[in-house]
Amino acid sequence: MSEIAEELVEFRRDLHRHPEPAWREFYTTARIVDKLETRPLDELYVGAEVLGEDRLSVPDDDELDRWFAQAREAGAREDILAQLEGGYTGAVAVLRKGDGPTVGLRVDIDALPIRESDESTHAPSAGGFRSEHEGYMHACGHDGHATLGLGVIDAVADSDFDGTLKVFFQPSEELISGGKPMAESGHLDDVDYLLAVHLGLDHPTGEVVAGIDGFLAVHHFRAEFDGHPAHAGAKPEEGDNAVLAMATAIQNLYGISRHSDGATRINAGLVGGGTATNIIPEESFIEGEVRGETTELMEYMREKAERTLRAAADMHGCEVDLSTEGMAPSARSDDEIRNVVAAVASDTDGVTSVLPSDALGGSEDATFLMQRVQDNGGKAAYVGVGTNHPGGHHTSTFDVDEASLGIGIDVLSGAILRVAEERP
Amino acid sequence: MSEIAEELVEFRRDLHRHPEPAWREFYTTARIVDKLETRPLDELYVGAEVLGEDRLSVPDDDELDRWFAQAREAGAREDILAQLEGGYTGAVAVLRKGDGPTVGLRVDIDALPIRESDESTHAPSAGGFRSEHEGYMHACGHDGHATLGLGVIDAVADSDFDGTLKVFFQPSEELISGGKPMAESGHLDDVDYLLAVHLGLDHPTGEVVAGIDGFLAVHHFRAEFDGHPAHAGAKPEEGDNAVLAMATAIQNLYGISRHSDGATRINAGLVGGGTATNIIPEESFIEGEVRGETTELMEYMREKAERTLRAAADMHGCEVDLSTEGMAPSARSDDEIRNVVAAVASDTDGVTSVLPSDALGGSEDATFLMQRVQDNGGKAAYVGVGTNHPGGHHTSTFDVDEASLGIGIDVLSGAILRVAEERP
Amino acid sequence: MSEIAEELVEFRRDLHRHPEPAWREFYTTARIVDKLETRPLDELYVGAEVLGEDRLSVPDDDELDRWFAQAREAGAREDILAQLEGGYTGAVAVLRKGDGPTVGLRVDIDALPIRESDESTHAPSAGGFRSEHEGYMHACGHDGHATLGLGVIDAVADSDFDGTLKVFFQPSEELISGGKPMAESGHLDDVDYLLAVHLGLDHPTGEVVAGIDGFLAVHHFRAEFDGHPAHAGAKPEEGDNAVLAMATAIQNLYGISRHSDGATRINAGLVGGGTATNIIPEESFIEGEVRGETTELMEYMREKAERTLRAAADMHGCEVDLSTEGMAPSARSDDEIRNVVAAVASDTDGVTSVLPSDALGGSEDATFLMQRVQDNGGKAAYVGVGTNHPGGHHTSTFDVDEASLGIGIDVLSGAILRVAEERP
Amino acid sequence: MSEIAEELVEFRRDLHRHPEPAWREFYTTARIVDKLETRPLDELYVGAEVLGEDRLSVPDDDELDRWFAQAREAGAREDILAQLEGGYTGAVAVLRKGDGPTVGLRVDIDALPIRESDESTHAPSAGGFRSEHEGYMHACGHDGHATLGLGVIDAVADSDFDGTLKVFFQPSEELISGGKPMAESGHLDDVDYLLAVHLGLDHPTGEVVAGIDGFLAVHHFRAEFDGHPAHAGAKPEEGDNAVLAMATAIQNLYGISRHSDGATRINAGLVGGGTATNIIPEESFIEGEVRGETTELMEYMREKAERTLRAAADMHGCEVDLSTEGMAPSARSDDEIRNVVAAVASDTDGVTSVLPSDALGGSEDATFLMQRVQDNGGKAAYVGVGTNHPGGHHTSTFDVDEASLGIGIDVLSGAILRVAEERP
Repeated sequence: MSEIAEELVEFRRDLHRHPEPAWREFYTTARIVDKLETRPLDELYVGAEVLGEDRLSVPDDDELDRWFAQAREAGAREDILAQLEGGYTGAVAVLRKGDGPTVGLRVDIDALPIRESDESTHAPSAGGFRSEHEGYMHACGHDGHATLGLGVIDAVADSDFDGTLKVFFQPSEELISGGKPMAESGHLDDVDYLLAVHLGLDHPTGEVVAGIDGFLAVHHFRAEFDGHPAHAGAKPEEGDNAVLAMATAIQNLYGISRHSDGATRINAGLVGGGTATNIIPEESFIEGEVRGETTELMEYMREKAERTLRAAADMHGCEVDLSTEGMAPSARSDDEIRNVVAAVASDTDGVTSVLPSDALGGSEDATFLMQRVQDNGGKAAYVGVGTNHPGGHHTSTFDVDEASLGIGIDVLSGAILRVAEERP
Repeated sequence: MSEIAEELVEFRRDLHRHPEPAWREFYTTARIVDKLETRPLDELYVGAEVLGEDRLSVPDDDELDRWFAQAREAGAREDILAQLEGGYTGAVAVLRKGDGPTVGLRVDIDALPIRESDESTHAPSAGGFRSEHEGYMHACGHDGHATLGLGVIDAVADSDFDGTLKVFFQPSEELISGGKPMAESGHLDDVDYLLAVHLGLDHPTGEVVAGIDGFLAVHHFRAEFDGHPAHAGAKPEEGDNAVLAMATAIQNLYGISRHSDGATRINAGLVGGGTATNIIPEESFIEGEVRGETTELMEYMREKAERTLRAAADMHGCEVDLSTEGMAPSARSDDEIRNVVAAVASDTDGVTSVLPSDALGGSEDATFLMQRVQDNGGKAAYVGVGTNHPGGHHTSTFDVDEASLGIGIDVLSGAILRVAEERP
Repeated sequence: MSEIAEELVEFRRDLHRHPEPAWREFYTTARIVDKLETRPLDELYVGAEVLGEDRLSVPDDDELDRWFAQAREAGAREDILAQLEGGYTGAVAVLRKGDGPTVGLRVDIDALPIRESDESTHAPSAGGFRSEHEGYMHACGHDGHATLGLGVIDAVADSDFDGTLKVFFQPSEELISGGKPMAESGHLDDVDYLLAVHLGLDHPTGEVVAGIDGFLAVHHFRAEFDGHPAHAGAKPEEGDNAVLAMATAIQNLYGISRHSDGATRINAGLVGGGTATNIIPEESFIEGEVRGETTELMEYMREKAERTLRAAADMHGCEVDLSTEGMAPSARSDDEIRNVVAAVASDTDGVTSVLPSDALGGSEDATFLMQRVQDNGGKAAYVGVGTNHPGGHHTSTFDVDEASLGIGIDVLSGAILRVAEERP
Repeated sequence: MSEIAEELVEFRRDLHRHPEPAWREFYTTARIVDKLETRPLDELYVGAEVLGEDRLSVPDDDELDRWFAQAREAGAREDILAQLEGGYTGAVAVLRKGDGPTVGLRVDIDALPIRESDESTHAPSAGGFRSEHEGYMHACGHDGHATLGLGVIDAVADSDFDGTLKVFFQPSEELISGGKPMAESGHLDDVDYLLAVHLGLDHPTGEVVAGIDGFLAVHHFRAEFDGHPAHAGAKPEEGDNAVLAMATAIQNLYGISRHSDGATRINAGLVGGGTATNIIPEESFIEGEVRGETTELMEYMREKAERTLRAAADMHGCEVDLSTEGMAPSARSDDEIRNVVAAVASDTDGVTSVLPSDALGGSEDATFLMQRVQDNGGKAAYVGVGTNHPGGHHTSTFDVDEASLGIGIDVLSGAILRVAEERP
């Protein structure tokens, strides 16, 4: 295994110190672009250039402005920031080195609204690169993913790769709302082979999963119920009770019939309503999700959920407004590319274990990009690169073992070269 | 108090031995008509002649045929039975004795699906006139009511009454479905004063309530949910679950908002659905009722209940069919006639206590007849005639004290004469 | 009608500029006490001296500290503030003028979390005494109530009143949580007659209601459900879903059976739960209320509500923590004192209409004080003093007509003298 | 393929004419035993001798008596009937032919409460052997299964089989309540290899499935809620509403969280409650089932369902009585025996297609017998013998193609011989 350059370590720690959540990756994108400009790239696309129409869950202007100003204060380059206004974050780097196939690598870059541990046993705290955005944290390793993207560009640029490399620095994965607009940006349309990557996932440093499967298709929704308030003591009959509509909906959402074709899920994860004990509630909301082992199963659940939400509103004389907050299809890693990754990984220094596949059991919007490539006749795989992580994903003590970054760069760049060569 | 004629006692016991439930009062009506034909009446209307269009809750033909045949076997006159075919039961007797006002008396005649006590402590058992229709019983005193009707005709016929007397022998009170068609028959339209009567109501023999109030308006509904069956193990997703629609409806029916204008009630009193544990239920039903302190409050509940039932069906992909099984408005006894009854009762032998009013707290479809008269500018009162009843109304040991029948005849006929005289 | 002193108008407007919600009436109490010290009182009790043990809904220390500091900045006297620490607000003033009976007057002093209108048509805005505590407002006239208290002391002090006058400046009426501790303070125990007062209530200036009835007993509760979180996609079965417990509870709370003895109410007015769409919710809460036409009916609802909340938690493997946030019994104005008020009002300048009684249809914790006096054999009445109010109670354009303050002072002080004289 | 003996065809049609549901297979058992007595058996066990303690869902005495009398009338032998009193139906036949292993064959014998088609296109109608027990029908081929049992005995008796053959004629499979007591009878304890068989399952005549998997473990429950009745108009507050408890339970049963380990099912398939619209319901019930891809998953659902049922009762002041009506574990066919069946079937005349396995997707209590053998170290497989069936299983036009019976006898007897020989 090769030690990664000091520059990459510093880069990863800089991102770690400046975690930014979905659609607010201003500092992050600016730093990535700043670094990319020092590489021998042929093309570099930034912000609105890498995103199609359908951005979901974009925060309001106040929230965007706050993070934008914070990125500026932290030293992000003004000329790059100017390209990101309105929350158009992310970038696509293109390196052309011959007439061979186009190979893509997708990495995601956003952070989470979790307060990072300040214990001395937590490496970023001890090492002085703990989050400077209190209440936010890179608790899922996307700082490492961005670093892998940069490292792979360096490795491929230095190689005898025959083909075109595209690296997709995707925003807003955590809200599963960045994958769709990037998939629809056009940049995926000539990609023959796509790799996506995730660090950790309960695999230790040295273990590689050649192709992950078992993505649940997912749809995040928000339902807002609008009724009519009334004094609960004096005129209760004049109210149209939005909380009662919400409760009826919740009860029945969880009761949607199981489907015999495979696993489905539903959750009303964040709910609320009303203003005071003595007012019949005028407003309420449910933020929830449906999932399915296949996109069809997810859509089955979604259709039933929407029917349930609408009928619950009707029952209680309320209006309901439904919106989509995020979504991702299911996907499968292709065996042809999985086999290449497995073969390369087996020959890579530092790799002690190679698993052909594993089930994610969750959702990821890399599936939009994978599906785009597969729909065009290309092939895709989602690669797991093990890393020793002290805390679980999405917890305050999560961290990546920086030694795994070198392994990841070697495996991914090796697979990219081999894929271009073998065209499986 | 005058002893009532032996004939009337025998008549009441004959009816008691042959209890017939709503719309099946074939023997009962035949016996009443047989007796009425021996009285000096001016007009006598029977069956379809006394009922408007809107009969509700009429049993199916098999059920009607069974009771019809049973009445025939029990000795009911064929010529009268012929007038009652199709469940057109009930009668109206008219006695014209001068140019004075038209005074009506309404008595009801149906029995209940309750098995009568066979204990020796139960007077009808001991006296040999226990129900011969096993499982059915005069457990609310309507056998006595019919007897009061006959007795009042005799008393008024023998008096110097100046006016017209109409006695309404109404079927199907227990299903609150006979009052509406009788009210719409036309026979009420020239009635200036109407008395209705009930025995008992927890008042002892000797106590009279001059005018009862506090009738709750009521609406009986039946909702039938029709979904789609499926094998619960193999293809649950193919089902549209009628039991789940029913359960959602029940939960939300009871949760309809209270109204600040007065008392309301709701009950899903009889429900069911499904066929087997391993089939997603295709069908279900709710038989229920809404009530209100006023007809408006009842209609408020009814509207909300229907909205709830329809939305519950929509939510679960089912159809719902709603039907009205019975209904009655609220009503008030008029003070003018209440005062007359109170004055007459105070002077009647055997009466030991006179209450000006009392609240029923339940429902009665005499209110349709009262409302008809009141809407035409007439006046009405619902009179309570106390009777010692060992068991409560609608229980297997209910019985009326025959001594109270004489009191009732005296009070009612006395009030009828006084009302015709005073025209309050 | 007498013009009230300029001092009282300024006092009322000063309180109006500094609205403070429940248990945070620091400036308000300090201003009241400051004024009271200039009156010829015999005793003056402040803060903890006027409150028993059971204060409910007291905010946390941070919230109390914020309002305390704000009161200090606004110029409240330090020596008085020192007596109010910890949110012990309110005062009791005692004036002894003879051996006659002890007569009490209760006024409340807290404001509401409502943003006051800044329209020029709104008198406080036009007159320069709009709320300086943005988001809070005297939208129910308690600034006027406190002024009535001060004015009555002046009027009685100047009169030939023979007895003891106690004026209760009660905090935290809006959360129905100040009445109980003040009732239990001991200061009510020798009161023979108690008047409570409210301005407005949809009665215009010049109209007086001698004794209001129809208080609904009320109980405010908070239920916190505590379950177990789990990843909604990966391990849903490991969760104990607090939102599902909440929804089950809401559905069934509204379905608690109506009571035939009188009106009842229930409302789940403020609810919420969960953290994210992909987490099975660990926590949820319901803030709600039950009411009843009598205290017994309220307690019936409360018992059923608590059973429902506990069972909903059990059903979903959650714990539930129930707390009482506020409460008040029902009450009736005594006719003896109502008659005195009516008689006095009829003779008061400016009074154009006197109603013997009216139904509140809501709740008020003055009932705790009234009940205390009545339980000790005393008599009480809740007096309504009409005032032209442009907007409804608890709306941003509510205001009191200052002319009604003089009427109120005259009626109340007149009734206090007459009661002491007649001892009805 | 060999034609089966005329005797077997007549036997099958005789059973088809006399369909008897669970625990009422009096005629059926008597006919089977009568036939078995003509075979060269070593042992024959009947009725209580073949059943352990835990019989579930046994009908009440009236129901048993009715079917018992009917069997007698239809000509069942009195001496055999005497052994079946109390609903102890079923038989076990033992044929000992050497020292080789003990091989078992399980066939089930009960019918369904379905009215058989009387169309001329329905072979039993056209052929004169339509059900004589109106409303009941062999709609799942168990008449054919019993015939297979008899035919296999004949084939093995005529062969050079070296071992012991036990044929289990099991009652009450349709209520999944006969498998458990037969498994616990002791007769399975020395069985080394067990075959169970089912005709049809959407496989045509000529197709054989060597070993079926995918049995869902299942548990049938009955919950009876017992509350307190009250008059819905006069005293609703005195009721403890069993229908509301039932509805709350239903809503929440369907909402039990999905499990990430595999498929689960729940169904409230048959529900009901209440007596009349104007009575707060005193009683209600739910008959339902839970299923799981494994027995553990079924038990997970069962535990949650029971918690839900109990809490729903508590919530509404009701008692709930839970009983088990039937159950079956999941199971897997063993590859060793599956392979033998596949090999034999491939060499059998008339067999046109052999599938190694298929998923049932439903439940079957043969799994109790399979599990018993496997727990003792033996091996088991559930064999599917295709048959052209015009209508689906459990429909009024289901029928078996008698040609498939010969194939079934050949495959099963062939496999029994081969298993005894190879001892896989």
